[in-house]
Amino acid sequence: MNDIRLIPLTGLPLIQPGDDLPRLLGDAVERAGGLQRGDVLVLAQKIVSKAEGRYVDLDTVTPSDHARAVALQCDKDPRLIEVILSESEAVMRVRPGLIITRHRLGFVCANAGVDRSNVAPDGIDRVLRLPEDPDRSAQQIRAALCGRFGVDPGVIIADSHGRPHRLGTVGVAIGLSGLPGVEDWRGRRDLFGYTLQHTEVGTADQIAAAATLLLGQAAEAIPAVLVRGAIFEARDGTAREFNRPRELDLFP
Amino acid sequence: MNDIRLIPLTGLPLIQPGDDLPRLLGDAVERAGGLQRGDVLVLAQKIVSKAEGRYVDLDTVTPSDHARAVALQCDKDPRLIEVILSESEAVMRVRPGLIITRHRLGFVCANAGVDRSNVAPDGIDRVLRLPEDPDRSAQQIRAALCGRFGVDPGVIIADSHGRPHRLGTVGVAIGLSGLPGVEDWRGRRDLFGYTLQHTEVGTADQIAAAATLLLGQAAEAIPAVLVRGAIFEARDGTAREFNRPRELDLFP
Repeated sequence: MNDIRLIPLTGLPLIQPGDDLPRLLGDAVERAGGLQRGDVLVLAQKIVSKAEGRYVDLDTVTPSDHARAVALQCDKDPRLIEVILSESEAVMRVRPGLIITRHRLGFVCANAGVDRSNVAPDGIDRVLRLPEDPDRSAQQIRAALCGRFGVDPGVIIADSHGRPHRLGTVGVAIGLSGLPGVEDWRGRRDLFGYTLQHTEVGTADQIAAAATLLLGQAAEAIPAVLVRGAIFEARDGTAREFNRPRELDLFP
Repeated sequence: MNDIRLIPLTGLPLIQPGDDLPRLLGDAVERAGGLQRGDVLVLAQKIVSKAEGRYVDLDTVTPSDHARAVALQCDKDPRLIEVILSESEAVMRVRPGLIITRHRLGFVCANAGVDRSNVAPDGIDRVLRLPEDPDRSAQQIRAALCGRFGVDPGVIIADSHGRPHRLGTVGVAIGLSGLPGVEDWRGRRDLFGYTLQHTEVGTADQIAAAATLLLGQAAEAIPAVLVRGAIFEARDGTAREFNRPRELDLFP
């Protein structure tokens, strides 16, 4: 069994809307010595969102009555709530200072991933939404890297999520390509022939959490990490594998 | 920013009750080249439980009426349920095939961590509970390694937990010593001076998830991983930092 290496990619510029992110990432990968078979590139979702121009100027937003009512409950800007609701398929919890929704992509998180931090201070009151289709973004970056380096990597777009029963945010995969999300270990047996108790393993989330040790939350200077040596089944998955079906959700 | 390396420790024997786990781990660390400053040793909880003899022979268990009632609801062995309840402070959810409780250590997980898999097939119907006090176990192993190598490492005892809203298990820290559990990043600012949105980061859980990529679920051949190069504040924490206070739990 080999080591796993988490290699921070440095030297990327601050990403602007329209930037050619696959090329910039390729340059960073090249500076790190290129791709190896089995590599997984983990990206902070924020640079993908920025390259896609997923900003909304709050001055252009007219909050609905529903958004105003929710905003009162959580004591937030009604225009921000309007953006959050437009990115959500259901409101899960609202408390003072807090709104948790099911994102239109199917996962549950705070603020629908809409972010006021790390947005340039040009005087405009704007927020940044998650990438429109993170699986697709991952697929596009993967294709570009594969074309450039002749090696087909996995790509994960990672965000940090809070958790219902545990304090502290951890990195999770909100988009991916070229690797599985959840691995099904049913049928595998342990040393003594017992079937395994844990049979669905959140492989891509664990890779995202590992990389987030380096991505941090603040330093846009390290927006990408190369994970080398992780072992997973050769299958092209989707981050939607992580969405627990409603009928299996015991904490709705 | 340096790489992080995840180094699997190999060559440990199958652990038996009473084994000198700190010595066996020290031998494995020595084979891997010794400790470096900042290293974190992540252990599968199972080897700690086994060394502590945390087995229960189900033939010695008399289920209470409550255990029998719960066992009917989840279609499990009433003796197993008795053991699970004895390790729990509250039952959270019971469904056919499933019981989720708040463990006496304060975290929420399935089966109170009581495990039928990976237990030797000597004909006795027995189960393995989590270590009695995982923080204490981590502290003892840390002290032994520090004495042997003259370097004070972090130690994490990891288990794999399911999650309310996401499919797939991920590694988490159920015991730790020599590093923080949750890091408080309040006051830190991003590149543009905005305060960070995510201010409590589950550092030890992310390290546990990273190591669990190697620990896997099946292979007792790799029961420990050395994590080298992770950056965290110099503070001695506890896994209890991850326990979300009841009043902050929106999914009770």
